Amino acid sequence: MNNIAAAFQEPLDSTSDEPLYAQLERRILQLIATGVLDENVPLPTEESLVKTFGLSRATVRRCFKDLVDAGHVRRRRGLGTFVSRQSGQASITRSLNFSSEIRALKMTPSSRVLEFRTIKSSASIAQNLHIAKGANVWRIRRVRLADGSPVLLTTSFVPTLLCPKLSEQDLEHSLYSRITEQSNALPARCEEIYDAVCLDETDAQQLDVPIGSPAFRIHRASMDTRNRVFEISIIIEPASKHRFKVSTDIDEVHFEKIFDMG
Amino acid sequence: MNNIAAAFQEPLDSTSDEPLYAQLERRILQLIATGVLDENVPLPTEESLVKTFGLSRATVRRCFKDLVDAGHVRRRRGLGTFVSRQSGQASITRSLNFSSEIRALKMTPSSRVLEFRTIKSSASIAQNLHIAKGANVWRIRRVRLADGSPVLLTTSFVPTLLCPKLSEQDLEHSLYSRITEQSNALPARCEEIYDAVCLDETDAQQLDVPIGSPAFRIHRASMDTRNRVFEISIIIEPASKHRFKVSTDIDEVHFEKIFDMG
Repeated sequence: MNNIAAAFQEPLDSTSDEPLYAQLERRILQLIATGVLDENVPLPTEESLVKTFGLSRATVRRCFKDLVDAGHVRRRRGLGTFVSRQSGQASITRSLNFSSEIRALKMTPSSRVLEFRTIKSSASIAQNLHIAKGANVWRIRRVRLADGSPVLLTTSFVPTLLCPKLSEQDLEHSLYSRITEQSNALPARCEEIYDAVCLDETDAQQLDVPIGSPAFRIHRASMDTRNRVFEISIIIEPASKHRFKVSTDIDEVHFEKIFDMG
Repeated sequence: MNNIAAAFQEPLDSTSDEPLYAQLERRILQLIATGVLDENVPLPTEESLVKTFGLSRATVRRCFKDLVDAGHVRRRRGLGTFVSRQSGQASITRSLNFSSEIRALKMTPSSRVLEFRTIKSSASIAQNLHIAKGANVWRIRRVRLADGSPVLLTTSFVPTLLCPKLSEQDLEHSLYSRITEQSNALPARCEEIYDAVCLDETDAQQLDVPIGSPAFRIHRASMDTRNRVFEISIIIEPASKHRFKVSTDIDEVHFEKIFDMG
């Protein structure tokens, strides 16, 4: 089953206060956000969505109209409806989709898998994933590279119950789209705590930076639309290649990552 | 002249597209944001604002109504109109007003002044402050403390032209309200770049943390309502006491500082 079909398997909630067209809209935005839908693949047609969800034609039409008006998608005569280029820049895409981000910078993303196995979850991992202590989790440790040069180091923990089948090959692409496919867990949001650290020998060597050099250490929890934590990870970003920009005005704070391969 | 009077000296712009009630509203929100107006001092009366700005009664009333409706201020019968408690939590207050932030945590803020003098601006300082190279600037280096314990280290540069009179005593209170008073520069926004660093001996000693321990280093530029840079600073926040939380969902990113004296 492809990712798009998997994502549409879960029915919409007709008892919710949120109108159905808005629920459908959010579902599609999530697919865009996680990179499952991109500029190259047409969205499901209005007809197929009417069928899949048993929705009225007007509901689906309203959803598509809103997405077009907001600039998220555009209709291409005779070809279908496609994600607009800038819509791939949604906040959560940038956070969760390393490959898209690197490609947007006109570089080639790759991964070096350092560790890939299942372990029994420790008390702290179990607590953060909201699973029973000792339940199986994937432990995936990867260096992510841009044009062959190390950019960051991630250690991820994913409940095997959510994603029973995972191969090293899957990790070359997006881990998240693989999770979505198997679990219907559509990434909806993530929470990150940023620390500053000085790198130990192991991490420094993997990242090809001097021992003791400064880095950001990020603890991330990723939640799906039903607010289940489907992954936690620890991300090490060396300060030589990462900074972030915070703009504050009277009532808003903007946060932006700056990635510097210079 | 007190800060409130100073802030109202600059006339509103009757040629602007922005309605006068909205301009007045923004002016008042800035005073709240910078801590010049707080829960303890009543706002100027509607009558006095009508006079000061030569505005119609309806304009001032509309501004106050909006501020009340938005929960920024509340009317206290027989006493006047006061800032609501939570409104003092505006984004820019938290960024620029160390003392308010520490007091909100039920601790006592203080400062240790390490350096306080005027220097000729270097090329890089001049460029960042948009002034001529060699123009005089205040260089102010302070350790900021909470309950007597060092929390962060700031090195600030302020053009003396904007704030000719400044004493070491002024620094005990808010530097920003002193700048507002002398220059009519109302802080409106700031931009910060966050780096991770490992502390050198000097900074580590001032902050009472081990040499080489990790910290955030923040380059900040603060702008007034006319988009003039009125201050730049370098802020060192040891990782042992500071972290950041970033929450990302489909189309929004929230950034929050976490301050941990534990």
